[in-house]
This record gives sequence, C-alpha cells and structure tokens, in this order.
Amino acid sequence: MSDKPNTPLLDQVHLPADMKGLSDAELKLLADELRTETVSAVSVTGGHLGAGLGVVELTVALHAVFDTPKDRLIWDVSHQCYPHKILTGRRDRIRTLRMKDGLSGFTKRSESPYDPFGAAHSSTSISAALGFAVARDLGGVTEHGIGDCIAVIGDGAMSAGMAYEAMNNAGHLKKRLIVVLNDNEMSIAPPVGAMSSYLSSLYAGAPFQEFKAAAKGAVSLLPEPFQEGARRAKEMLKSMTVGGTLFEELGFSYVGPIDGHDLDQLLPLLRTVKERATGPMLIHVITKKGKGYGPAERARDKGHATAKFDVLTGEQKKAPSNAPSYTKVFADALLAEAAEDSKICAVTAAMPDGTGLNLFAERYPSRCFDVGIAEQHGVTFSAALAAGGMKPFCAIYSTFLQRGYDQVVHDVAIQRLPVRFAIDRAGLVGADGATHAGAYDIAYLANLPGFIVMAAADEAELVHMVATAAAYDEGPSAFRFPRGEGVGVELPERGQPLEIGKGQLIAKGARVAILSFGTRLSEVQKAAEALSAKGINPTIADARFAKPLDKEMILNLAAEHEALITIEEGAVGGFGSHVAQLLSDEGVFDEGLKFRSMVLPDIFIDQASPEDMYRVAGLSAADIEAKVLEVLGVARIGEMRA
Amino acid sequence: MSDKPNTPLLDQVHLPADMKGLSDAELKLLADELRTETVSAVSVTGGHLGAGLGVVELTVALHAVFDTPKDRLIWDVSHQCYPHKILTGRRDRIRTLRMKDGLSGFTKRSESPYDPFGAAHSSTSISAALGFAVARDLGGVTEHGIGDCIAVIGDGAMSAGMAYEAMNNAGHLKKRLIVVLNDNEMSIAPPVGAMSSYLSSLYAGAPFQEFKAAAKGAVSLLPEPFQEGARRAKEMLKSMTVGGTLFEELGFSYVGPIDGHDLDQLLPLLRTVKERATGPMLIHVITKKGKGYGPAERARDKGHATAKFDVLTGEQKKAPSNAPSYTKVFADALLAEAAEDSKICAVTAAMPDGTGLNLFAERYPSRCFDVGIAEQHGVTFSAALAAGGMKPFCAIYSTFLQRGYDQVVHDVAIQRLPVRFAIDRAGLVGADGATHAGAYDIAYLANLPGFIVMAAADEAELVHMVATAAAYDEGPSAFRFPRGEGVGVELPERGQPLEIGKGQLIAKGARVAILSFGTRLSEVQKAAEALSAKGINPTIADARFAKPLDKEMILNLAAEHEALITIEEGAVGGFGSHVAQLLSDEGVFDEGLKFRSMVLPDIFIDQASPEDMYRVAGLSAADIEAKVLEVLGVARIGEMRA
Repeated sequence: MSDKPNTPLLDQVHLPADMKGLSDAELKLLADELRTETVSAVSVTGGHLGAGLGVVELTVALHAVFDTPKDRLIWDVSHQCYPHKILTGRRDRIRTLRMKDGLSGFTKRSESPYDPFGAAHSSTSISAALGFAVARDLGGVTEHGIGDCIAVIGDGAMSAGMAYEAMNNAGHLKKRLIVVLNDNEMSIAPPVGAMSSYLSSLYAGAPFQEFKAAAKGAVSLLPEPFQEGARRAKEMLKSMTVGGTLFEELGFSYVGPIDGHDLDQLLPLLRTVKERATGPMLIHVITKKGKGYGPAERARDKGHATAKFDVLTGEQKKAPSNAPSYTKVFADALLAEAAEDSKICAVTAAMPDGTGLNLFAERYPSRCFDVGIAEQHGVTFSAALAAGGMKPFCAIYSTFLQRGYDQVVHDVAIQRLPVRFAIDRAGLVGADGATHAGAYDIAYLANLPGFIVMAAADEAELVHMVATAAAYDEGPSAFRFPRGEGVGVELPERGQPLEIGKGQLIAKGARVAILSFGTRLSEVQKAAEALSAKGINPTIADARFAKPLDKEMILNLAAEHEALITIEEGAVGGFGSHVAQLLSDEGVFDEGLKFRSMVLPDIFIDQASPEDMYRVAGLSAADIEAKVLEVLGVARIGEMRA
Repeated sequence: MSDKPNTPLLDQVHLPADMKGLSDAELKLLADELRTETVSAVSVTGGHLGAGLGVVELTVALHAVFDTPKDRLIWDVSHQCYPHKILTGRRDRIRTLRMKDGLSGFTKRSESPYDPFGAAHSSTSISAALGFAVARDLGGVTEHGIGDCIAVIGDGAMSAGMAYEAMNNAGHLKKRLIVVLNDNEMSIAPPVGAMSSYLSSLYAGAPFQEFKAAAKGAVSLLPEPFQEGARRAKEMLKSMTVGGTLFEELGFSYVGPIDGHDLDQLLPLLRTVKERATGPMLIHVITKKGKGYGPAERARDKGHATAKFDVLTGEQKKAPSNAPSYTKVFADALLAEAAEDSKICAVTAAMPDGTGLNLFAERYPSRCFDVGIAEQHGVTFSAALAAGGMKPFCAIYSTFLQRGYDQVVHDVAIQRLPVRFAIDRAGLVGADGATHAGAYDIAYLANLPGFIVMAAADEAELVHMVATAAAYDEGPSAFRFPRGEGVGVELPERGQPLEIGKGQLIAKGARVAILSFGTRLSEVQKAAEALSAKGINPTIADARFAKPLDKEMILNLAAEHEALITIEEGAVGGFGSHVAQLLSDEGVFDEGLKFRSMVLPDIFIDQASPEDMYRVAGLSAADIEAKVLEVLGVARIGEMRA
C-alpha cells in the first residue's frame, strides 16, 4: 500500500535474529521505525494502539538482548503485542490484525513460536513464566528448548490477586525468572488500589529521565570484570535512591525504576540481568501508554482501543450507529434506578468505561467502586454490600466473571445474597475473539440454586431487566446482554420490573415453536419471515428467564407444537439444557417431541465480526431457518406444507 | 452428658453481652473453660479442633471488647469458629456440630446473627469486612446495624490472591476496618510461599511471649489521656523492634506481632484499636494451632481435623475401613505413573494431605509443587508446565477448582494444553456440607472445547483414568472421584489407558437402560437387584466419559430400550445435559424416548453423611428404583411386566 511508512531498517528485520548484529544506535532507529509502522498498521485495522506504543523500546530491547523463541517472552494481557508481532515474522500480516482469518489481536501459541503463552485476560504472565522456568529446570522438552523466562506485566495487572499468588510462589521457589513491571499508570482505565499508590511512591519526585535502580538486588548481578554497558549500569545503580521493598519482601530482587523509552538504560540493564540474574528479579520500567503518537498520548484512554483512524489527525473512522449500545442502555437504566433508590450501588473490576459505570461514578461517586482487576474480591465485596443492606450491581463481562466463579457460588449463591450481576459481552464478541467470548455464564449460573438468570432480547428488555434486578431483593440475580448496538427498538421511559420466571409470546404460529433466550430473537424473527414465505409460521417466544424457567409456557409450547427449538448465545449446559431437563422430567419426550437446542458449537471461534462468528457458530437466521426445515422434515423433499 | 466438663463461668455466658461485666481475670478463666468445652464437644462430634483451640483467647477478647452482632466479626474459612459458636448462643447444640440437622461446622448466616458472613473456602473475610464497612458508611440498613467490621484471617489464607485484592482495595478506600492476622504457621498444611517467609521474618528471633507492635501505625491510635490498658499498650509499643512494611505499603496500619494466647496483651490492644482506629488496621497475632490440648499440639496437623476421640488420651475412634480411600488410590496410581515417566509432575493448592500428594512430594520432591491457597495461579502454572513439555497433574477439589475456572478456560482449554485435573471430592461430601459440594465441575468443564472429562465408577476405574490422563497428551483432561472409601473392588497392578470416549456395558438387560457417570454405579447396581426381584432387568452402562460422549453406545442404548436414565453426582448442565443434547441433535426424541436425567437437585444440601445427603438429593438406590418404575409406568398399577 502506498501509505506505508518508510522503514529501511525495519525492512531488514524479519525475525529477532536479524537484530543481533545491530548497534545500539541502530536499535534506536529500529524502535522509531517500529513505532511508525505500528501506528500505520493500527490506523488501517483499528485495535489496541496505546499499549503497543508504550512498549516499543522495551520490545526492541528484549528481543535484542534475549534469544527468543528459546527465551520465553510472555506479554501480560498482550494488548501491547503488536510491535512484538511485527518483529517476529508477522509484519506481512500485521494489517489483518483482529480481522477474520487475520492475526489475532493477542499473543497466540498457534500463531507463532514467539508467542509461548497466549493471553488476553490479565495477570497470568508471572504464573506462566514461572511454569516455563520450572519446566526448564526439570528438563521439559519443547521444540525450541527453554532459556530465560520473562513476563512483561503492567502496573494495572498487578492489582489482580493472581499476580500476587504467582509472585508469592516464585519468591518461594527462587528460580531464575524475570518480571518486567511495565508501569504506565494506565491499564484500560487508570489503575486503582493501594499497590498503584505504592508503585507511584517508588518514583515520586524522581526526574523521569534519571536512571534509578535499587542496588540491593542488582549490584550483586553485575559481571566481573565490568563490560562497557555494565560499567554504566553500575554507576547508575550507585545513584539509587528508592527501594522496592514490597517486592523484595516477596523474594524478588528489585531494579528500578528506569525509563522504559530510553534504550541507553534498557539495553545495558537487560544485558546485565541476562548475564548475572539468579533468582526471581523484578525490573521496574516506567513508560507512557501511547508514547510517541500525539493523538494517543493526548487521549483520555491513551489510545487504549481505537477504530481505524487517520494517521495525520488521529481522527477515528467510526461507523454511524443506529441505536445506542447495550452498555449505554444498561448504564442509563441503572442511573434511573439509582436516582430513586439510594441503596443502589455499583461495582466494577477495572472496567469503568467498558461497563458504562463511568457515568455512575460521575453521578454517584460514593456509591461506585472500582476494585481493580480483582473479580474475586469484587464479587465477595458485593456480597457483603448486599448483606449490609445495599443493593449492589456487580458489572463484570461474562468472560471475566469466570474469575469470580467460586465467589459467586460460595459467597453469593449459597448465602442467597441479592447481588445483581450485570453481565455485558454475553455471547460472541467479535474482534477480541475466543478469549473474550461470553459463552459459559448461562451454564455456570443457571445451575446455582436460588439464582435468577435473565437475558435481554433487545435494549428495551434490558431496561426492564435492570428494573427487575433492582426490585428483586430476595436473592442473587443476573442479566446478560451482548456487546454492540441494540436493535433500534424504542426505549421505555422507565424500566418496569418483569414477573420473575415469566417469558413472553412474541408471535403465535403453528407446528414449530422457537424459544429464544437473549438477542438471537431478532435472527429468529428474520428466519420466521423467510419461513413465512415458504408457508411455515413458527410460534416465537422470548424466554427472558433461564432460571426460573417459565414452566407453564414451555410445556404449552411443547404440547401445542410438533417441534420446539431453543436458541441461546451460550454453550451447551445452559438454557437449552435446562429446558431439556424440564421436558424430560415432565415426560414430554416419552411420546415424542421434535426438540432441538441451538447453542454455541463445541469449538473456540476465532475473531471476526460478531455476525460472521455467529455464522460460524450456526446461530444465524439462515441456520435457524434450516433447522426448522430440517426438524419439520420439509427441507429434503423441497416442498412446503402449510 | 455426664462427661461434660465443669465450667461454672461459661455456664453463665449465653451471649457475648453476658461477658461485658467480667473482669480481665474472669475472662481468662472463661477462656480456659471455653477451651475445655471445645475439646469436650469435638471429642464427641469430630471436626476441626486445632484451629478453634488456637483462637480461644482471641475469640474471648474480640467478643469482650467489641459489640457483636452489631460489630461484624468475620472468621476466615471458619474452621476456627467452634469457640465462637459456644459463646454466641449455640452451646446447647455444640455437640451436634457437622451432623445432620445439627450446627454447621462453619459460620453460617442462616444459623445466627453472630455469623454475619459465612465462610468455608479460604480468604474471603477481608473482602466481606470491607463490604460491610462500606455499607455502614453508605447507610445500609440491617437488623442489627453495622459497627466495626473485623476479619480474622490466618497466615495460610494470606497466600490467596483474593486476600491481596481485598487489602489493595481496602488500602485505597481507607475505611475503618480491622484485620486480625492469625499467624500460626499452619493452615491445613504448613503454609508455603514468600509471604509466609515474610511473616516469619517479622518475629524472627523475638521471644514468643514478648509484646511487640509496630509503633508507626499504632502509637497514633492511643487515647489521650491514657487509660490503664492503653498505658500498658503504650509502653509495649515503645519496645517495638520489627516492622510490617509490606502491609503499610498497602495502606494498612500495622500492629504486632503480639501473643494471641495472652489476654493481657490482646485486651488492651483491642480496646485501644476500638477506641481510636480510623483507617484499615492489621493486627498481627501469633497463635499456636491446637493450643492447650496436648494431643492436638503434638499432632503433625495440629489437630486440624479429627474423628471422635478420647479426651484423656486423644485417641481417635475411626471406623475400620474396608477399602482404601479414593484419594489414596489416586495418589498411589499417580506414583506408579510417575515412576515410569519423569515428565509427570504434580501441583496442589495448599492441600498436600487432602489430595494425597504428600506421598508424591516425599518420593519426587522436585516434581511436586504446593503453590499455596492459589488456585488461579496453580492452574496457569500447570498450563505453562505443560507448554514447557511436562505432564502436570493439577490436583484440586471440585469445589476449589471453581477458584481457577477462568484459568481453566483461558489458559488451559483455549490453548489446548495437556493439564491433567485430578478432581477429588466430586459430588456430595458429607460433614463439610453445601460449601464443599463438588456439584458443578462436570457442567463447567464438559462444555469446554477439547476437554476430556471422566468420572471413575469405582477405585479400579480411577487407577485406569490416572493412566489415561498420563497417556493423553493432546489436550486437557480431568477425572473426578468422590470423597471417602472405594467400593472394595480389586485394584489392578497397573492402570491401563482407556479408549478416549468409550463407555462400557456393565449388564445387559431389557426395557430400560441406566447410564451412570461416576460412583453412583454401585447404587444403580443395588437398584437393579431390587428391580430384578420385580421382574425388571435394566441394562446398566458406565459412561466413563462425559466428554467426549460415547455416541455409539448411547444411541444404541436409546434405540434398544424404551427408557434411558442417566445418573451423575452433579448438577444439571453436566453429563445428562450433554446426553440430552446428543439425543435431540440426533432426533432420538422425535419418535419418543422415555429419557430421564437424575442430577443433584436445585437446592444446597446441608451437612449429613454422604449417604443421607444423596437420599436428600434423590440419587440413592431407592430413588433409582423408583425412577425406573415410574418411567416404565409400573409403579402405580403395582404390577410388574417382564
């Protein structure tokens, strides 16, 4: 393409091995070209820009000093992996990022040996690096061997208990292990919590460009006799003024903080570490998210996620939307409830913007809690808020609520505490791919005694479900809704609590009933239109509740039709399985019922548009139509009966 | 009962309010009587003895100083809650602990207002206390009001990320909150990890009886003018020599360590804290698990869990066993595999004894990893071990694996890494009750693409499943088995890998087929015997795999019988749901099949013997028999047809 930047040095680097002959000066040039190429690529694909720009120099330094893929470089969350992908043999496909059949927006084992451990959820990297380090020392056999094990983790990700668990274990095992703490004071939102304040205190008042390192851990690492870079590192270590005692108390040697955009600091330090490190080592690197690209640096989210954009202006090319996003509808509906009930409060795990709770935090700051990347704590904290007489809405994406599943069972469900779970990103999510799919929440919530489990069929239903959850104070409830825009229905002025466990008939037809749970309803309606042209008029119902089931409605649908088809945006074990259980318990199958349950298939579906993903999943209007024809036995004979 | 101890003072204390008039000297006497009563009670019930004995003085001090139930006292895990139950209106039922219809072995909201937040899994207490503190400050309305919020958490529980997440959030919110760190260097097993070493360093070399407190946090708490107890506290604070900087860096004021068995230290300190604390405060208390009862103090597990015992000798009255426990069978089978394959390694989350991996750790110390109470890390660590060429067996109870569910999905399943999950305590577990039920693992694992999910029908099958998991290196696998003893079948010399996805026919009968997944098989066989006497001879099959299903066998069973009944020790959404999905996909229901899926019912089942619990669940032999009769329509007419 004609608008690709001029990158003569980068053009010669196809793999990290090609960097080995480069001088430090050339590596600086390479970093500049890598930054330009990253901006250019994301301008045509959209995606996670700011995180990658913040680690351009770090990426160059790590690949220049270490021997990937034998040395295992593990990017936490891996929003920041685009420059890494460009340097590791994937530059030719970098403009397919996050697209169907293109590169994943995250690191992915199946994509490259330079991605030894994929990520997309936060705070797994130290556990993974430690696992590789232990496997190395036990003689685990892999294609490339195992050398150094390096986790690069952000300060936001350090708020997760999992990172602490891994450090606690690593400090105990004392294996050689390198953790690079990429401290940019910005994950998706500004990080919160005491750890964040602590990290800030480590460089408070220090000039940003000054090399600082805690000598206690690092001086012992220096080689004898000193090499050129090491001599410089040694001098700088002497000027160390701040500590990293929290990490040292957990058994890590601490070096830092250093300027992560200065290769003159990064390269000698990493070389020294590579030469001499023994046990677990934490390198505290200060970076700027969005570094080097003005529009990202100036953005409130530091260019965290962007649509396609104009490189010169930074202006994003967003498609005009016809309807508000489900997230916004949820947020507005919750504000409306909160205005009337001071007991309503909200909890997010480091996703105030993604969940829409930023609006709540602005309006009701004392009733909104960002607990950090801490779903386990967030769920139990919500449970205690409920036990303390509040009405907490715990807003966590379906895929991330998996992080708090035991707390949902143990603290919420068993104690029957009225926590309201607002489950965004239910179903397939598009560009974020398989790791972010909200596939399992129906199954893992609907088998918990006493839980109310709802799914919104459209954005108006979502408003009513927020009201339902607000009104229901007898026990836990959850309502799920997808990523993206609503279908464009008119929104009610105010939500009305739904009757618990009651679905609604959408259209009365004959022969086949389609019972939808969630936003597949619009696809069901499309399928019904197509079927109508073929003389088949399905009954359509919106289940609203996976738990409790609308037993009466379901049994009536079964009794009045020769076929019953359920559909949901979730895996087997969820809504359809509960319906099947009801039907079998009631003996409905005894005399025959053409029952089908349309669920997400037994595969992980790679990134594409949600529509494409649902086609792959076999849950599009065409699939529904085909299923009806098949179950009625009319497809094969090519004829329609009324 | 005649063997109840003489406890004149305790006899007058029915509720904490009755302690308010007691002098410090009387409180010491009360503590002694409380210890005696605890030992006496557990001697007749069995249960968790050591933990309670370790906190007798702490329990007395907390209830004497604070105003429960308005002040919220939250015991982490709550193994240590028996003395608390005795002091809070439940002494009359203390000898029903862990029995059917008796007191729970854990704190439980529905049991008493003095149990504001139940627990049984570890490390939830700080989150809960923080939630109450926030609710208090927001004006949450509860029956008793909300005063001080106090979490009592063990040093072992501090290895869990959730505790760190809560501290990180609490340090940020700066609410008045009291965390008592009960440091006994012994949770269920000795705690591991860098945090444990750090805590030890805080009192290394200090005489155990000496009062020590970090003054930085505590001096500012002292009242002016000093009261008697506070004056003493002040003097002692001056002698403080050790810090607690890790906690201070997380925003807590730190006081300690102090001797948790000395009421002369505990009472003045707690009074001072109650008087003057502002933000979050951590009180570091050193105790001895099993304190004051010789047999517990001398036991390797410090009397962690005990059968009924003789108070004088400490000798436990264990019923003679006919068969080895499933845990032991698993452990021996894994040792046999590990002897032949040096790539096999084992991971436990602080349960080396409970999982049987203590044997593995003895034989192969370098290949066995106790990661602490850190299921999230443990799962991802195992995933990386697998990526590094090892063959990890990750042994976590069903209920605790819920803690690592996201990691199972995100790090293991999506990356298709061959981690082997050994899932002990599957199904209902007896005295530990609802919080420990292994009810959901079939559902939450069997819908993950690429997972192999097995359940052992008996102990010989378990041996083969260990061999199967060892041999299967293409992706993740799991095998589940229950608490308790096997059925007494002969064990094979060596496990033989099973064919993946193949069940086995146990008995060929007619009319009805019962397809069992797991150890209900013996109940199925009992039911079949009873049915045989009535002229009904069911076909019996052992599914072995919930994923992949033995499609051929299941479809044949359906085709050859008028009724098919599945049974499993799990909730809806699991094995039976997958069978139903298969049958509906294949159109088997179209022409009619009497299909029933027997699963755990939609209730949380309180503690009792496992047999009693399965009767409540409707999964006993009698229930299976009744289900067969009902489905064949022969029950009501009282006649049998061949």
